[in-house]
Amino acid sequence: MRKRRLLTPGPTMLPDAAFRAMGTPFPHHRTEEFRSAMREVLGLLKEFHQTSWPIVPLTASGSGGLETAVINLLSPGEKAVAVRGGKFGERWGEICDAWGIECTPVDVEWGQSVDPAAVEKALGETPGAKVLFVTHSETSTGALHDVEALSRIAQKHGVLFVVDAITSILIHDLPVESWKVDVVVTGSQKAFMVPPGMAFLSVSPRALEAARRSKSPRYYFNLPLAVDALAKDDTPWTTAISLVLALRESLGVIRDGGGVAGSIRRHARAAAAVRGAMQAMGLRLLPERPSNALTACYAPSGIDTGVLVKRLDSDFGVRFAGGQGSLKGKIFRFGHMGYFDDLDLIGAVHALERTLEALGHKGTRGAGLRAIQDALWEGGER
Amino acid sequence: MRKRRLLTPGPTMLPDAAFRAMGTPFPHHRTEEFRSAMREVLGLLKEFHQTSWPIVPLTASGSGGLETAVINLLSPGEKAVAVRGGKFGERWGEICDAWGIECTPVDVEWGQSVDPAAVEKALGETPGAKVLFVTHSETSTGALHDVEALSRIAQKHGVLFVVDAITSILIHDLPVESWKVDVVVTGSQKAFMVPPGMAFLSVSPRALEAARRSKSPRYYFNLPLAVDALAKDDTPWTTAISLVLALRESLGVIRDGGGVAGSIRRHARAAAAVRGAMQAMGLRLLPERPSNALTACYAPSGIDTGVLVKRLDSDFGVRFAGGQGSLKGKIFRFGHMGYFDDLDLIGAVHALERTLEALGHKGTRGAGLRAIQDALWEGGER
Repeated sequence: MRKRRLLTPGPTMLPDAAFRAMGTPFPHHRTEEFRSAMREVLGLLKEFHQTSWPIVPLTASGSGGLETAVINLLSPGEKAVAVRGGKFGERWGEICDAWGIECTPVDVEWGQSVDPAAVEKALGETPGAKVLFVTHSETSTGALHDVEALSRIAQKHGVLFVVDAITSILIHDLPVESWKVDVVVTGSQKAFMVPPGMAFLSVSPRALEAARRSKSPRYYFNLPLAVDALAKDDTPWTTAISLVLALRESLGVIRDGGGVAGSIRRHARAAAAVRGAMQAMGLRLLPERPSNALTACYAPSGIDTGVLVKRLDSDFGVRFAGGQGSLKGKIFRFGHMGYFDDLDLIGAVHALERTLEALGHKGTRGAGLRAIQDALWEGGER
Repeated sequence: MRKRRLLTPGPTMLPDAAFRAMGTPFPHHRTEEFRSAMREVLGLLKEFHQTSWPIVPLTASGSGGLETAVINLLSPGEKAVAVRGGKFGERWGEICDAWGIECTPVDVEWGQSVDPAAVEKALGETPGAKVLFVTHSETSTGALHDVEALSRIAQKHGVLFVVDAITSILIHDLPVESWKVDVVVTGSQKAFMVPPGMAFLSVSPRALEAARRSKSPRYYFNLPLAVDALAKDDTPWTTAISLVLALRESLGVIRDGGGVAGSIRRHARAAAAVRGAMQAMGLRLLPERPSNALTACYAPSGIDTGVLVKRLDSDFGVRFAGGQGSLKGKIFRFGHMGYFDDLDLIGAVHALERTLEALGHKGTRGAGLRAIQDALWEGGER
């Protein structure tokens, strides 16, 4: 009777209606029945991206979405600047390297948030840079970068601005159009609450123009082709039908729960409560300016978080994520995004306290639990 | 009480167990629980591809799989030859064009199967050609190409041989390793009986070597990276978890139904019965050498197959596909692959007879139905 509670920084748990949608016979994708589902999904996605610009659905995981952004805005030999403060920040440079695009990194210590002045300096020192890339919520460290400030810098320098919002959309405010973010990349398996398999890109008119001019060879990840197909409620390639039908349900749950504002409030409240509980247990948070998608904590000394994560799962069915790269074994990441409720969080804190004690971290029994109860009790409307 | 019967050339209907797998909470993808599911799926896929070579799972639709084959085997400026006898045959050339790869087409009238001698001639006239591409079952016309004969020609000319087997795997014999097919591309939503969203590539040692040398820029569609990850039961990018779990069920159904041989026999029997029924109704088949995945028929003169397909769906819930490209409005395509049974086929023939009569094709009431009953009655073991 151990139940599964997926509290990783993605994939997240799903509303029952999303599971039901995937568990039911589906229509062919070239039918009005399916097109109407796709229209509804893309309409809600525009609302949640706070934009009237087209949103392109891709059948690919988030990394495919990031590559699509890079190669449609840049041609081999061109220049870009990217904030690099974690595994996902590094990805921009890796993609650019693979494509012969010159990407200047703005290095940030893992866990820290970028100083906008450093980005300004890098852009100043990279004449001809065409695009600025940033990861809004850096999932490997739990740090949040200041997209609004970076957006002003990008505008000042006249470069295109691209944001990986895979774990920030619906969790932190990201008014795509008013902040003039040219491309925002999001993914299905985070706050959108469906399984992995789809990425989404919002495309500004400027970005679309650049994509039409890009000389990067591409067939499947062709943004202009996809934008043109949207006019007929279509996709150039067969889409992941079952994920689209699940999305219609999950996005409907978000709309009914207060849309963008409701979702941001809910995640902020949960994140504050979890952070407080971790500190009450004597744990140290990694990020200085944390994302509300996840809480990244150092384990007490002597405890390997790889062991902790496995044991939490095997003993309690609670799944966190461990650390990546140089943080492997050192941090754990407690995801609180998508389909979770207060009781899931409280239960997970109990499981964490008990598992940490079993691994040698004594003397804080109940401290985290009391803290999270108090925070959620007094934390106002869910 | 109109039930949905999806009889298109993909996506197909799904076994109940596949729907149940997708309708159930799932594990994180970086867990032993998920890795063991992936191992089982890849093991069955190797068995069904009749090879010991690695099979790379991609989160993408079939077209992404085709592009992966092209760009990993060829660099811009290199040469290839491709059989072009339908919409999917054309795709090889389109992908090569997008990548600056010189692709010589071997043109085949839509509906015809390629003459191996024409391919031999094209290879002889294209010195330096590195790859031969062919679509095994050309889904836009229902024609089958002779992969075994082409394989011998490819070997003779020392070129890599790539087969789009998206609608032929498990339907026609394709012993990948003994026929020395360097890359076979397949997709989730055909005979594998899960929704669209994944493509698979079997990779020969020669193909892997070529992929390591290819200068085509790529990040997401990087075959060597994916093959290296397989050694750790892993994928470089987050995979479509729910589709993998559904695949485990669907592929298990195929294994329990006699594996490759059982599946090929079942599709051959159904295809023969459907073709006979169409001819008994006075309809003309398009392909000379038909694929057993689908039956492509001309409509009686004066009937637009776009109208026919819509009406079959609205009146009976039976979904066929219409024609593509120059065959739009002229042909319909009756898919018989994946999860269907004799009673689905018989019911669909009734629905087709009735709809054709309503649209003006009189005088054959019952002819198709009697023919398919007789064929399935006498057609031996299912």
